[in-house]
Amino acid sequence: MLETLKQEVCAANLELAARGVVIYTWGNVSGIDRERGLMVIKPSGVDYDGMKAEDMTVVDLTTGQTVEGRYKPSSDTETHLELYRKYPQIGGIVHTHSPFATSWAQAGRGIPCYGTTHADYLYGEIPCIRNLTPQEIDEGYEENTGIVIADEFDRLGLDPVAMPGALCKNHGPFTWGKDAHEAVHNAVVVEEVAKMALYTEMINPKAEPTPQAMQDKHYLRKHGKNAYYGQA
Amino acid sequence: MLETLKQEVCAANLELAARGVVIYTWGNVSGIDRERGLMVIKPSGVDYDGMKAEDMTVVDLTTGQTVEGRYKPSSDTETHLELYRKYPQIGGIVHTHSPFATSWAQAGRGIPCYGTTHADYLYGEIPCIRNLTPQEIDEGYEENTGIVIADEFDRLGLDPVAMPGALCKNHGPFTWGKDAHEAVHNAVVVEEVAKMALYTEMINPKAEPTPQAMQDKHYLRKHGKNAYYGQA
Amino acid sequence: MLETLKQEVCAANLELAARGVVIYTWGNVSGIDRERGLMVIKPSGVDYDGMKAEDMTVVDLTTGQTVEGRYKPSSDTETHLELYRKYPQIGGIVHTHSPFATSWAQAGRGIPCYGTTHADYLYGEIPCIRNLTPQEIDEGYEENTGIVIADEFDRLGLDPVAMPGALCKNHGPFTWGKDAHEAVHNAVVVEEVAKMALYTEMINPKAEPTPQAMQDKHYLRKHGKNAYYGQA
Amino acid sequence: MLETLKQEVCAANLELAARGVVIYTWGNVSGIDRERGLMVIKPSGVDYDGMKAEDMTVVDLTTGQTVEGRYKPSSDTETHLELYRKYPQIGGIVHTHSPFATSWAQAGRGIPCYGTTHADYLYGEIPCIRNLTPQEIDEGYEENTGIVIADEFDRLGLDPVAMPGALCKNHGPFTWGKDAHEAVHNAVVVEEVAKMALYTEMINPKAEPTPQAMQDKHYLRKHGKNAYYGQA
Repeated sequence: MLETLKQEVCAANLELAARGVVIYTWGNVSGIDRERGLMVIKPSGVDYDGMKAEDMTVVDLTTGQTVEGRYKPSSDTETHLELYRKYPQIGGIVHTHSPFATSWAQAGRGIPCYGTTHADYLYGEIPCIRNLTPQEIDEGYEENTGIVIADEFDRLGLDPVAMPGALCKNHGPFTWGKDAHEAVHNAVVVEEVAKMALYTEMINPKAEPTPQAMQDKHYLRKHGKNAYYGQA
Repeated sequence: MLETLKQEVCAANLELAARGVVIYTWGNVSGIDRERGLMVIKPSGVDYDGMKAEDMTVVDLTTGQTVEGRYKPSSDTETHLELYRKYPQIGGIVHTHSPFATSWAQAGRGIPCYGTTHADYLYGEIPCIRNLTPQEIDEGYEENTGIVIADEFDRLGLDPVAMPGALCKNHGPFTWGKDAHEAVHNAVVVEEVAKMALYTEMINPKAEPTPQAMQDKHYLRKHGKNAYYGQA
Repeated sequence: MLETLKQEVCAANLELAARGVVIYTWGNVSGIDRERGLMVIKPSGVDYDGMKAEDMTVVDLTTGQTVEGRYKPSSDTETHLELYRKYPQIGGIVHTHSPFATSWAQAGRGIPCYGTTHADYLYGEIPCIRNLTPQEIDEGYEENTGIVIADEFDRLGLDPVAMPGALCKNHGPFTWGKDAHEAVHNAVVVEEVAKMALYTEMINPKAEPTPQAMQDKHYLRKHGKNAYYGQA
Repeated sequence: MLETLKQEVCAANLELAARGVVIYTWGNVSGIDRERGLMVIKPSGVDYDGMKAEDMTVVDLTTGQTVEGRYKPSSDTETHLELYRKYPQIGGIVHTHSPFATSWAQAGRGIPCYGTTHADYLYGEIPCIRNLTPQEIDEGYEENTGIVIADEFDRLGLDPVAMPGALCKNHGPFTWGKDAHEAVHNAVVVEEVAKMALYTEMINPKAEPTPQAMQDKHYLRKHGKNAYYGQA
């Protein structure tokens, strides 16, 4: 079942490695079939080398049960499920330990929008989500990770389409998109933006975020009904 | 039409990716045929993978209208046109989001000439051009980007041949040259110089620019009528 | 003799180069056959290019004498032997000069556990072991290097299984594992963690280590009897 | 003439690019035939791509005149000649603009010996040589560059065999060795050591050089009559 989606999700996982944002098994990508309510995700702890579409695991969105696949799903499965439940607009999710984005997460800071590279994809500062409490960890670490991301987005009034990513403190980035491929694209963008934000502050510790009019211009020339970037 | 120029411009775009200064569609290169008053430029938002000469778009220098090509031209087309209009000496232009040069742009600082690597190609500090005002953004973001670059060069008395590049604040570098290939070469140089300038300041926060006599020696042994670097 | 182990150790040495953590001959990997009391190790100063299983050197764990092989063993042989003698739990050891981990060693600082990437593999701060005294250097530099690592682990109450690595001050990292392959894996992890720890402090000089409950969660979901990461 | 030496020098130039320490034409390697008093060097401004042994230029050590080759020799030829004249012990010389070593040169600082990676190859701090005066630049920039390196080595009492490299302020590194291949090896070592020295100071701004006893141990276990590193 879901052969096309499995191929997409497998290809997206492999692209993560090919783009240099993960080593070993340090990342996972999922995609969802909204009609059937089924998520396809990378298996847990399996190497990217030689990974095939049929190695992907299928999980029920509602119950969280594995419905197909020879392998256990990623240990981060519950986080993916929680985000899909909360955000019907998204079709793919990625988690990585990409070095620069993870370093911002470890530093406990959101990534300011220092330039148009950032503004082209993410509208505003990429938020750094608080640590779970010991109780939240005990009661369900992975599921609660998804819940606190969504809670923080609610609190900040963030639209997950305009801000397709977040950093989990002392952990690393999650990104998402309309499908698995776009979620990977955003994972690469967040890593690149994280790198440049660090360099920016090293070059000028008093650097200021991009003026709002310029952020608006860049985000809106690529997104929304008046977008004119790219081909029709 | 312009088959040779299209091939040059396409090859220059691909070299940008091969040299590691751009990922995805984060850059664009153009070249110009001065006799015909036509610019060839990368199409907007098209991936480098599999890009061919016939995918390039031809734009009229005077009117800004597309005169050939199946794709819309780069969204930065008006900036390229404006620079070609202002500087008849240049034959190729590049825009990238290469990480180190973009970080200097995001930091709002010009790149001091800290060494001979810089002085071999760029005569003096690479200027960081101010942000556009909200009004300038509204009235024509891309065209005004070219205008403010040229205005700042006028104000600083810079010769675009001796200073073949600039940083646009919170955005990234533009470079140029006698043709598309040289413009790409200068994009790579600016990125390398930007990287070393950051490291230089980390090693010694009080580092001073290269003494003027040494800048003169290096720039002039490669450029101008008494140059003796390279083959005749 | 020990053909399989020689192949494993040779492959592990080559993987060290392939993973980009060593250049030239700047690293060495060993593995041990506990039943026979024999260690297989990379020869001293031999390039990775073209290195074969039969080039490995076999050394007696008790006597330190070479018992097979056309080449002299790594100059760090005595350090490996000392660690194997002290820690019967380990089956493979790696020494590298990987740049980020070596820089922490040169800086004389242990690597704080800033995130889950670290906590997934190493339980707590990676210790930086003191320099040898001039007398310790004179009396047996390589052997004493192993002794001071083990002494410091005793003093800190560290379990070499939960903390499979250490930094030797002004020198570089040693890592280990249940076999040569896992020791290499840990060498790559330590390098990645060292890189991110540096970036973390640059982004936020007041960054704090990962909360203990989160370190426990990540280490224990991968290790120990209740581990649920990976496949059964 | 000198076919073997041309092949060695050409291969050494290509290795410089393959090892990632130069891009474009940003480096040059030479080798010398002491019996004939002839130096073989890379031609000026010629790309590494497709460069062949027969493209090398042969220059007379005494007169500085080109005695064979279709191309003009490297613009740094006089610096190479001056170092060969001053130091009969050396057989190969390299100049690069490798980014980390060049950044220390641009910062005007010598590279402290922070660890054994450095001590294995270079005995003490790698010196940063002063800028030439405007008069020295006028009178013979390249030749005087070699002279001031040697003068500074004399002043500091440095042995060019134990310290096979130097940084020229606001310019970049020169390294040397018993032949062109070893000189390239040392260029790669200096770049790696320069990178780690920067990271070391970022991790600990108060980092101290390696204790002398440890520098002695590492340098002398690889060099000199009691060396025991590598194969006999």
